[in-house]
Amino acid sequence: MTNFDEATAVRHRGDGHYEAAADPRFAIVLPGGTVPPAVNGGALLATLLRAVIHSSPHPHPVATSAHFLRVPQLAPVEVQVTWLKRGKTAATARASLVQGDEIVVDATVTTGTVPGRADEDAADRTLTWTGPPPSCPAIGDCVDLGNWRGTFGADGAAGYAAHVEVLLDPATTGWRRGEPSGLPEMQGYFRLREDRDPDAYLLALAVDSLPPTVFGLGATGWAPTVELTWHMRAVPEPGPLQVAARCRHVSGGWFDEETEVWDSAGRLVAQSRQLARVGRGPLRTTGAQQAAGAVRERS
Amino acid sequence: MTNFDEATAVRHRGDGHYEAAADPRFAIVLPGGTVPPAVNGGALLATLLRAVIHSSPHPHPVATSAHFLRVPQLAPVEVQVTWLKRGKTAATARASLVQGDEIVVDATVTTGTVPGRADEDAADRTLTWTGPPPSCPAIGDCVDLGNWRGTFGADGAAGYAAHVEVLLDPATTGWRRGEPSGLPEMQGYFRLREDRDPDAYLLALAVDSLPPTVFGLGATGWAPTVELTWHMRAVPEPGPLQVAARCRHVSGGWFDEETEVWDSAGRLVAQSRQLARVGRGPLRTTGAQQAAGAVRERS
Repeated sequence: MTNFDEATAVRHRGDGHYEAAADPRFAIVLPGGTVPPAVNGGALLATLLRAVIHSSPHPHPVATSAHFLRVPQLAPVEVQVTWLKRGKTAATARASLVQGDEIVVDATVTTGTVPGRADEDAADRTLTWTGPPPSCPAIGDCVDLGNWRGTFGADGAAGYAAHVEVLLDPATTGWRRGEPSGLPEMQGYFRLREDRDPDAYLLALAVDSLPPTVFGLGATGWAPTVELTWHMRAVPEPGPLQVAARCRHVSGGWFDEETEVWDSAGRLVAQSRQLARVGRGPLRTTGAQQAAGAVRERS
Repeated sequence: MTNFDEATAVRHRGDGHYEAAADPRFAIVLPGGTVPPAVNGGALLATLLRAVIHSSPHPHPVATSAHFLRVPQLAPVEVQVTWLKRGKTAATARASLVQGDEIVVDATVTTGTVPGRADEDAADRTLTWTGPPPSCPAIGDCVDLGNWRGTFGADGAAGYAAHVEVLLDPATTGWRRGEPSGLPEMQGYFRLREDRDPDAYLLALAVDSLPPTVFGLGATGWAPTVELTWHMRAVPEPGPLQVAARCRHVSGGWFDEETEVWDSAGRLVAQSRQLARVGRGPLRTTGAQQAAGAVRERS
């Protein structure tokens, strides 16, 4: 079992209550160390979705809407799942990730069935149509973000960036050397460092795996996600995931970010949009590695 | 008070419980009449949001995630609001629109403050950036959808299309004469027939006011929304709203739809993305008016 599967595992205690953990292996130690390490929001979503799918009449989390309310402690959490409707095509559950008596992530999830991998996909006799894919350089021409700041905790424990690999289109990495492109766009590739095929849970991680798009505008501060909704569109093929994100509007301290995830067979497998807060001015960073450390986390 | 404000009004009964109605004035009589009239989902969202804002510490519904579970009867409904967090920048509530003991719409809403109208907007000292606007013909060159099928009930009562005005870019109206463009895109203008300035509640209606984008692919059947999330980005100026929608992927009976709403001052004021079901083949329609009647409603 991979670190990812262990870190996002849930254990059913009955009646829709699941034991889980905010696991340090997917935590990010923030630059400055003034706040406790935050667990990557995608890892929290993967945990929550495991509990939902465990009791779902349908196999896939087709639509997941999540509001991020608080940063959890690195400690046990509980997932509470309540089914609101169990239909033939779609079923909807309320799912909350709770720590103590406070909700950390509040989500509504509609499950259903999406097309399988490419071979099964060919049997899809329903209407199919896909817009043009993003144009991203080959993975070999992308820049490995490596072990960015926050990868290792004060005690040496390996966190988020030690478990995922993010390779960025060089055109979207100017912010690392203090030369942001001027466009709020980010694209590249994402995979676990361990060998593991992508699935719904890894897609939940992938939809928010890139640095915040506003880094491209020079706003490299902490950019907490307030709300993120993602749609699973197909079961991904094995291989790295291509991820492309753009922002459409920034004002009043809010920015949106739309992300598409394409699999190694060139199929659109997931989409997300989130609303996040722009950090209060750039962090006082001294180099590319520190700027990279300010990768988005949830508040 | 306009029909829209009356139809979406709520009355607080205490303890987060609000009386409201699924009002026939925003209902659509479906072609064929085999199912009961459905109230426009945006009108249901506006009703729900009135209850949320009534008890919110912040003025604007910044992020609204809604899952549409059931079609309500044209009868009283209750909105139940529970606050999960009341923060200084953002507050989050769970809100359900309930009829009998069944949830019709289940939503989570994060409230906050977005930039005001253009004059106040100029005082925004935070980072601002906006992507290029959609290119839509002038309102005078657009096609008024008029009183499409479903506008009037069997008893002659005026429904949704009698209260809203939708004017489409002629390039996205080929489906009305059986000649779909081949692109799942729709754009045009939206306003109430009554004179009323747009606000958050009208934006909730506007984000899903156009015919489904898959009409552009010839799929003009009933296209129920499963999940819709929308973000309010600014307080709109008076005047008609420009609405542009596109779809990125259709497969397995599911399609997404991303919509932007721009105000009369050319500002991006709302964004949405929804996941919906493709209708099971075109309805047996005999002309443009009937095809137009299959405008999207919630299931």
